[in-house]
Amino acid sequence: MLKIAIVGATGIVGQQAIVSLIGHPWFKIEKLVASERSADRKYIDALKDANGSSRWWCTEELPPDIAEMVVEEASAFDPASVDIIFSTMDASAAKELEPKYAKTTPVISTASTFRWEEDTPILVGGVNMDHAALLAVQQKNRGWKGLVSPKSNCTIAGLVVSLKPILDNFGVKQVMATSLQAMSGAGRTLGLSAMDMTENVVPYIPGEEAKVESEPLKILGKLTGGKIANASFGISATCTRVPVIDGHLVCATVQTERPCSPEDVKKAMMECGKDFADLHLPSSPKRLIDVTEDPFRPQPRVDRDKGGGMTVTVGRIRKDPVIENGIKYVCLAHNTKLGAAKGALQTAEYLVKNFLKLV
Amino acid sequence: MLKIAIVGATGIVGQQAIVSLIGHPWFKIEKLVASERSADRKYIDALKDANGSSRWWCTEELPPDIAEMVVEEASAFDPASVDIIFSTMDASAAKELEPKYAKTTPVISTASTFRWEEDTPILVGGVNMDHAALLAVQQKNRGWKGLVSPKSNCTIAGLVVSLKPILDNFGVKQVMATSLQAMSGAGRTLGLSAMDMTENVVPYIPGEEAKVESEPLKILGKLTGGKIANASFGISATCTRVPVIDGHLVCATVQTERPCSPEDVKKAMMECGKDFADLHLPSSPKRLIDVTEDPFRPQPRVDRDKGGGMTVTVGRIRKDPVIENGIKYVCLAHNTKLGAAKGALQTAEYLVKNFLKLV
Amino acid sequence: MLKIAIVGATGIVGQQAIVSLIGHPWFKIEKLVASERSADRKYIDALKDANGSSRWWCTEELPPDIAEMVVEEASAFDPASVDIIFSTMDASAAKELEPKYAKTTPVISTASTFRWEEDTPILVGGVNMDHAALLAVQQKNRGWKGLVSPKSNCTIAGLVVSLKPILDNFGVKQVMATSLQAMSGAGRTLGLSAMDMTENVVPYIPGEEAKVESEPLKILGKLTGGKIANASFGISATCTRVPVIDGHLVCATVQTERPCSPEDVKKAMMECGKDFADLHLPSSPKRLIDVTEDPFRPQPRVDRDKGGGMTVTVGRIRKDPVIENGIKYVCLAHNTKLGAAKGALQTAEYLVKNFLKLV
Amino acid sequence: MLKIAIVGATGIVGQQAIVSLIGHPWFKIEKLVASERSADRKYIDALKDANGSSRWWCTEELPPDIAEMVVEEASAFDPASVDIIFSTMDASAAKELEPKYAKTTPVISTASTFRWEEDTPILVGGVNMDHAALLAVQQKNRGWKGLVSPKSNCTIAGLVVSLKPILDNFGVKQVMATSLQAMSGAGRTLGLSAMDMTENVVPYIPGEEAKVESEPLKILGKLTGGKIANASFGISATCTRVPVIDGHLVCATVQTERPCSPEDVKKAMMECGKDFADLHLPSSPKRLIDVTEDPFRPQPRVDRDKGGGMTVTVGRIRKDPVIENGIKYVCLAHNTKLGAAKGALQTAEYLVKNFLKLV
Repeated sequence: MLKIAIVGATGIVGQQAIVSLIGHPWFKIEKLVASERSADRKYIDALKDANGSSRWWCTEELPPDIAEMVVEEASAFDPASVDIIFSTMDASAAKELEPKYAKTTPVISTASTFRWEEDTPILVGGVNMDHAALLAVQQKNRGWKGLVSPKSNCTIAGLVVSLKPILDNFGVKQVMATSLQAMSGAGRTLGLSAMDMTENVVPYIPGEEAKVESEPLKILGKLTGGKIANASFGISATCTRVPVIDGHLVCATVQTERPCSPEDVKKAMMECGKDFADLHLPSSPKRLIDVTEDPFRPQPRVDRDKGGGMTVTVGRIRKDPVIENGIKYVCLAHNTKLGAAKGALQTAEYLVKNFLKLV
Repeated sequence: MLKIAIVGATGIVGQQAIVSLIGHPWFKIEKLVASERSADRKYIDALKDANGSSRWWCTEELPPDIAEMVVEEASAFDPASVDIIFSTMDASAAKELEPKYAKTTPVISTASTFRWEEDTPILVGGVNMDHAALLAVQQKNRGWKGLVSPKSNCTIAGLVVSLKPILDNFGVKQVMATSLQAMSGAGRTLGLSAMDMTENVVPYIPGEEAKVESEPLKILGKLTGGKIANASFGISATCTRVPVIDGHLVCATVQTERPCSPEDVKKAMMECGKDFADLHLPSSPKRLIDVTEDPFRPQPRVDRDKGGGMTVTVGRIRKDPVIENGIKYVCLAHNTKLGAAKGALQTAEYLVKNFLKLV
Repeated sequence: MLKIAIVGATGIVGQQAIVSLIGHPWFKIEKLVASERSADRKYIDALKDANGSSRWWCTEELPPDIAEMVVEEASAFDPASVDIIFSTMDASAAKELEPKYAKTTPVISTASTFRWEEDTPILVGGVNMDHAALLAVQQKNRGWKGLVSPKSNCTIAGLVVSLKPILDNFGVKQVMATSLQAMSGAGRTLGLSAMDMTENVVPYIPGEEAKVESEPLKILGKLTGGKIANASFGISATCTRVPVIDGHLVCATVQTERPCSPEDVKKAMMECGKDFADLHLPSSPKRLIDVTEDPFRPQPRVDRDKGGGMTVTVGRIRKDPVIENGIKYVCLAHNTKLGAAKGALQTAEYLVKNFLKLV
Repeated sequence: MLKIAIVGATGIVGQQAIVSLIGHPWFKIEKLVASERSADRKYIDALKDANGSSRWWCTEELPPDIAEMVVEEASAFDPASVDIIFSTMDASAAKELEPKYAKTTPVISTASTFRWEEDTPILVGGVNMDHAALLAVQQKNRGWKGLVSPKSNCTIAGLVVSLKPILDNFGVKQVMATSLQAMSGAGRTLGLSAMDMTENVVPYIPGEEAKVESEPLKILGKLTGGKIANASFGISATCTRVPVIDGHLVCATVQTERPCSPEDVKKAMMECGKDFADLHLPSSPKRLIDVTEDPFRPQPRVDRDKGGGMTVTVGRIRKDPVIENGIKYVCLAHNTKLGAAKGALQTAEYLVKNFLKLV
């Protein structure tokens, strides 16, 4: 078993990382690491708020052995004491600490800090595994034995997976996307107000549209000569917040380079990611994309947990009545599983097996 | 005071019509008309369900004098006994009865039956009042003393109002719209299930997208030579249902014929409908469109009641990053006020004053 | 017109006070007063948060003339410059400033600070107007020309009104109450999290049960010899938070001193408060209590706005199957209207007319 | 493996029974049985509605082998073809068919039909397993080789479990309960309207309070001389519906015969059901009751899935401030797991192992 440390263990993504690792066949949680406020306390005590309420927010139960672990402080933590680090720190802490950790140890990160570094890929399971080779460049450039492998923004997780088979088979000219995003994407500590999010929609998420319009282009780009050439199509996004707990829904219109029918797109999506599924990574679903024929689906509450929250559900594939070579569809991904901790864990599994060759 | 009959008085739109007419300066509810099941009963008794619960669904209180009125049966009702008829019947009843009523009496209808008749306009307050002239053709064609003036679909009410100033000032090439629609649009009797609509989104509304893609073209068309030439741009729509009570939100991308800045669009929207507002119709708001600078708005629960539920709120006007001459914005309209009974009442007021010249 | 100042004008209760005073026949908002952070800014600017979003939280529109008023600082504000002060400060600010203001000017307060002062009544419209006489004792004791008249806790507003006719007619031995409280009661700035309050119930509200178990006893007590003798029955409360915006529902079981039938209770409730209604105070509803026969009612979203949010709706009056002389019912009151600003305004109206004799 | 048939397989409880049986160590789903409408169709086809949408309502995925099974008709189904029958029929179908099936085969039923038969116990896991002996009387009385063992009403599942240790240790004089019930309890086909259940509470559930006030008395009664003597305390209930998907919350006040402290009650609850847990039935949780110290818990969305939805969570145990020997607490049970299919399955497991001795 490989020893893993979770840094940022008391936050919601850290908690989801813990849940994702329960019963994992390769990884054993060796250390829980957090900020000074939580350090040297039992994890279960570090989770308590001023009222004595537990801030364990997952519906899965906290495993008793994890509850008893004593939390280490992030700046004092010795990265060499573990085989792999799962970082869920916020961007500023990540900027300072992840490079330190990476000197000795591979870091899988949900922070945005490294996403736009030239020598760093944004790996998305089943989409751009060949970009992992760029991590060797990163290691060489920076003299690291470890590495930093950042996760994509949660909103695009489903969109990027659904675009991949379209891009590969028919080419993409432009993408228009309207997202209906779940509230868990806003985090917990500075989360959304119940008064704002009850029987209401908020049609703006600060900073989100810029990410949706840029990150997919890097993820879907081509790695050649040690550099990623971004994909060249344009993306236009409107991001809204809806009263849903988990599951980001995206209504997409894709203008393809070459004509294709809804049936063509469905077929391409159903076949997408077979090689990746054949790796049988512990967190991977049997199927990257599930295409539903039910016109009323996908729905967040009903479909988000498909494939352990790792399958993207696509529905309503149809021709756009206006745009030439336009294909419309709706896709759904679990933003705190595929789009966050469990998606990052899947990347960790891939790297451990195929890049680091540790299992 | 003009005598008005509400046909379909026990349904939710009929109820909203009653509420819209409380204290009205021109109209007095003379008759409540409904199907056989409710006929010859006091209105308050006709509203009771099998458990004795009242199916009065408005949060406004039912006026005691209305509660005591005895309901007449729709097929026996004498249209000549009133000055104007407000019809909220379903499509099949409307098809049979509205032409009969129209022989003697003007009928303002929320049913879809007449929307696509060649000699019939779909009037939207402040948008296409000149189309009212087509009603004279309708009267002549059919030998009616009355008329039938149908309301548009509720979803497009806000979209069409927001498109009007763009079309007039900059031309429209194509429109892409994603709607996040309130549950009240689905009606009450065969309404949505709580289990489906809690913490969830349903990405499909049967028949809705076809209406959104066609009705605005007639409404925004040109009346020449006794015929409406439909507007020639294309509309592509995705219609979703969100857990909101009232208020349809539309995320729109408009490609204009001529370049324009977000400031240009804002200015055009703010000036839109001034002539119409100057008619001072009782149900008209001071302002057809309110443009908000707050990026988090419009929000359904917060903004839907603006202008008595008759003002369209537009926000987030910005350039599309991909589409040439593309303008994006979000607009909100109250689907059961502007988009239904109160919007139809406003049309009735216009016709009574400017076409029928009864006040 | 009497000049009124709203202190704490930028908070949610202050905003609701403004809304309650729109078009008021006796009061004119002369001054808006708030903390240092808002002082010397136009009210509309003081409402803006860091993102430029407006923290005007009422669905009613902010009147343009109020928007332009310049906010004064609470500690510098001259209480003698107005005829009456509406204080919505938090408890600590109220403790310091309300006694200063009261030297010259009557203060109606939604803060809890003075509720348990011996020479101070907790006035609830139509319930204990005779307690107003205690304010003369307060003025004398403290050498004030003004006074401080505090509002009750929002949860008990409906309960106390419903208990009054039972106490007067049949006596009360004990009360058991389970509340299902709306989220607006938790305030806005440190409000409830959307993740906690979606598709969920929180069965605890810190400090609330103690208030529900004590305040009604003072309110329903007897004023004799310049002192209030508290009512002597016991109250046991469980307070829960439900995903409702406005409207506190209370499921009550009352053991009466003397036997009574549900019909007796209904009759007593329907007759309750007639004298008070006959005062025709501007904010008073026609009827203090409305008893519904519909077993599915009262419901928060449907019934809270009855009587302008000032009527308490009672339903399901029935015999308790276990407790001797036990009567059960469900009551609903609008927590931010009757239970907060508008309820306080009603008290202000009473005092201005009957105690201060200013109108 | 024992062969099990699910009768009423297309309904929501039947679906939950299927989910509960996935990977079961003792039972294999041999037959799916339903009404004539579904008979002779593949299960997956029988689930389709008129729009082609699947009425598979569980978030767990439908196992592919179950999807392909052909549904049999209930009246033609041969009960002798299986070892045990899981019946989720409605009351009228159950009344006709369950006695027929029971001639040859044990029937575990979620229908209410047999609950008040004198020779029939209402078994609740860990509460009254000794009542199973009454089933031998039932078999003898009716000449059945099989039996009918009905499930309790879903609302009382948690209440009864929490009352058991109090009754056993301190005696119970009377119980007052206010429930905040989830919407899934209302079923799917004639379920609740989204318009009624959004941002709202409905304070009445037809027929529910009578069940809550009577069924626990039989369940907690004593079996002596082949008859159950009902428990003799009184129960007073108010049942409300809240906008929660799953998980019934009950606020209870229990007057005990003998004085006890909250700590005593906690201890009794934590020790409750140890013998039952030691049977290690496949569907049983490690702990029947979990007592939380967090005053804000239990909460439906957060705690309902504890112990696979089979653990009752109790919180806020405290003294009643008014009632002598009064103990108050809040308890939560998963109404469609412990309270329905999975609870019935647990009973089936108990009977199969300890009464029928088939495993």
